[in-house]
Amino acid sequence: MRRVCITGGAGFIGSNLAERLSALGVEVVIVENFRSGRLEFVADTLARPGVRLIEGDVLDTALLEDALEGCDWVFHLQANADVRHGLEHPRLDLEQNTIATSGVLEAMRARGVERIAFASTGSVYGEPEVFPTPEDAPFPVQTSLYAASKLAGEGLIAAYACGYGFTGLIFRFVSILGERYTHGHVFDFYRALQHDPTRLKVLGDGRQQKSYLYVQDCLDAMLLAAERHRREAGVHIYNLGTEETVVVDDSIRIIAEHLELAPRVEYSGGRRGWIGDSPLIQLDTTRIRGLGWTPQLGIEASVRRTLEWLDANEYVWLPTPSEAAL
Amino acid sequence: MRRVCITGGAGFIGSNLAERLSALGVEVVIVENFRSGRLEFVADTLARPGVRLIEGDVLDTALLEDALEGCDWVFHLQANADVRHGLEHPRLDLEQNTIATSGVLEAMRARGVERIAFASTGSVYGEPEVFPTPEDAPFPVQTSLYAASKLAGEGLIAAYACGYGFTGLIFRFVSILGERYTHGHVFDFYRALQHDPTRLKVLGDGRQQKSYLYVQDCLDAMLLAAERHRREAGVHIYNLGTEETVVVDDSIRIIAEHLELAPRVEYSGGRRGWIGDSPLIQLDTTRIRGLGWTPQLGIEASVRRTLEWLDANEYVWLPTPSEAAL
Repeated sequence: MRRVCITGGAGFIGSNLAERLSALGVEVVIVENFRSGRLEFVADTLARPGVRLIEGDVLDTALLEDALEGCDWVFHLQANADVRHGLEHPRLDLEQNTIATSGVLEAMRARGVERIAFASTGSVYGEPEVFPTPEDAPFPVQTSLYAASKLAGEGLIAAYACGYGFTGLIFRFVSILGERYTHGHVFDFYRALQHDPTRLKVLGDGRQQKSYLYVQDCLDAMLLAAERHRREAGVHIYNLGTEETVVVDDSIRIIAEHLELAPRVEYSGGRRGWIGDSPLIQLDTTRIRGLGWTPQLGIEASVRRTLEWLDANEYVWLPTPSEAAL
Repeated sequence: MRRVCITGGAGFIGSNLAERLSALGVEVVIVENFRSGRLEFVADTLARPGVRLIEGDVLDTALLEDALEGCDWVFHLQANADVRHGLEHPRLDLEQNTIATSGVLEAMRARGVERIAFASTGSVYGEPEVFPTPEDAPFPVQTSLYAASKLAGEGLIAAYACGYGFTGLIFRFVSILGERYTHGHVFDFYRALQHDPTRLKVLGDGRQQKSYLYVQDCLDAMLLAAERHRREAGVHIYNLGTEETVVVDDSIRIIAEHLELAPRVEYSGGRRGWIGDSPLIQLDTTRIRGLGWTPQLGIEASVRRTLEWLDANEYVWLPTPSEAAL
């Protein structure tokens, strides 16, 4: 890798990637609209030579083509990642995830960039019948607009790989935890307990099984696959996760222990936390392990690492500029 | 069914559906942009009571909401169906197939219409490893922008079915033949032989296996499934095809016999006719047969029926108004 464009490069995963790549001497172009990304996440990285920030949205074609100039890879991480509220604004996933991915691919064609790594999701398996779920599980039925929009992005990348000779890497993530994590169960519970240490409201019955992966393990896997396939046109699909699962109640226990609290837990009930929530996610990671990858942290250690980072970075509780403007 | 909106209702399949439904006394609202649809296809049907034509594109939200007023079903058939040339204009499939389907679903929400039947494609299986290919074949990799855009439409319908309680019927078609067929191998070969009866240029090696279904058999299946699932929210997915296949050379033989010609056949070579062409399509139709459906015509009879219709309707060789304007 010589120069890499990271869309969503000041977000949770993107900023960690930017930091690692720039430390390796790779030039980095960060594209960020600062909807969920934060300037604090990339402040140190931006001080390094060869790192450039372009503020704007990937739906802005001219901006994106400018960002891609001279790049040999795009890591397309920008997305609307709000799975739960998709039904309240159904165009958002289409625009931010599907149409945006088409725009990235078109800008790549325009600029002669032919390698893309894409953050997809284990949610594309819907409610699978096979556990752990492999990449070639039975053709799934989508259960959320978020997953449908990511699957549409996968399809576009595969068609471009087949039709234009692109190299496309598709990573189907479980939930990612670690430094700069600011979205999801663990964050929500931590914040709720800071607000009211005596009780915690939980969507679902607390028994939904979730799988988490530590962000540095996630980046190890993505960079390893990118290295392996850099000269191989076509699409390469990898599940990324640990094969462990925890139930929501386990996460609550770890967080409560960490905060030294004993809240009363109130469940909304039901197997799913919300419509489209999956009661069980556990991905088969045989394929990525076959490249020699092993995660360094288990789930409980990932959760604790995340909590320590949240303790030490209180600024994440302040609204971002775009949140403050609402 | 009381009132049905058919997008692409003056197209090949849509006009046959409009004709059948109106003959059954169902009110029909035809939405048609006349890109590939033709006024001749619906002239007789429009003379019937309860049939209305709205000329325009499904991307026009206001027009679509008007069309859906009082409907209990939408048959969403409008699409860019040009699989082969997708790579020449990669936004077209996204707009006409994916974004348009999102628009139809949003108009349905706005007008309280909760049942949709969708024309998808067996191409969503990419290059499958299982033949005949069932609906729950291993999670496929997309090989064309057309199929990717249709799969994206499927995902949207499934997510709306799950999230808003819609009834979504998804039909994965093989190629359809019969009255008003004006797009595909058989049409192209017939036209080429009329232009030059001495020789025929063929993409690929002539050994690509294709599967065809007669349009009235296709409509039987769609209407049967719609009747069966009319009170069942959720998504219901059906392959539609015969389990026969023919190779491209068989089609050529039938057409040449019908026209009483003996052309020299020139092959471009290769297992695929074009990038993204599938060398073998054969769908498992156990699921739709389980509802009691059986196709009435085999492939050879379908091809002959199609050729007879082409013989008797020379106007299809004239350009449509939109083609003439190019």
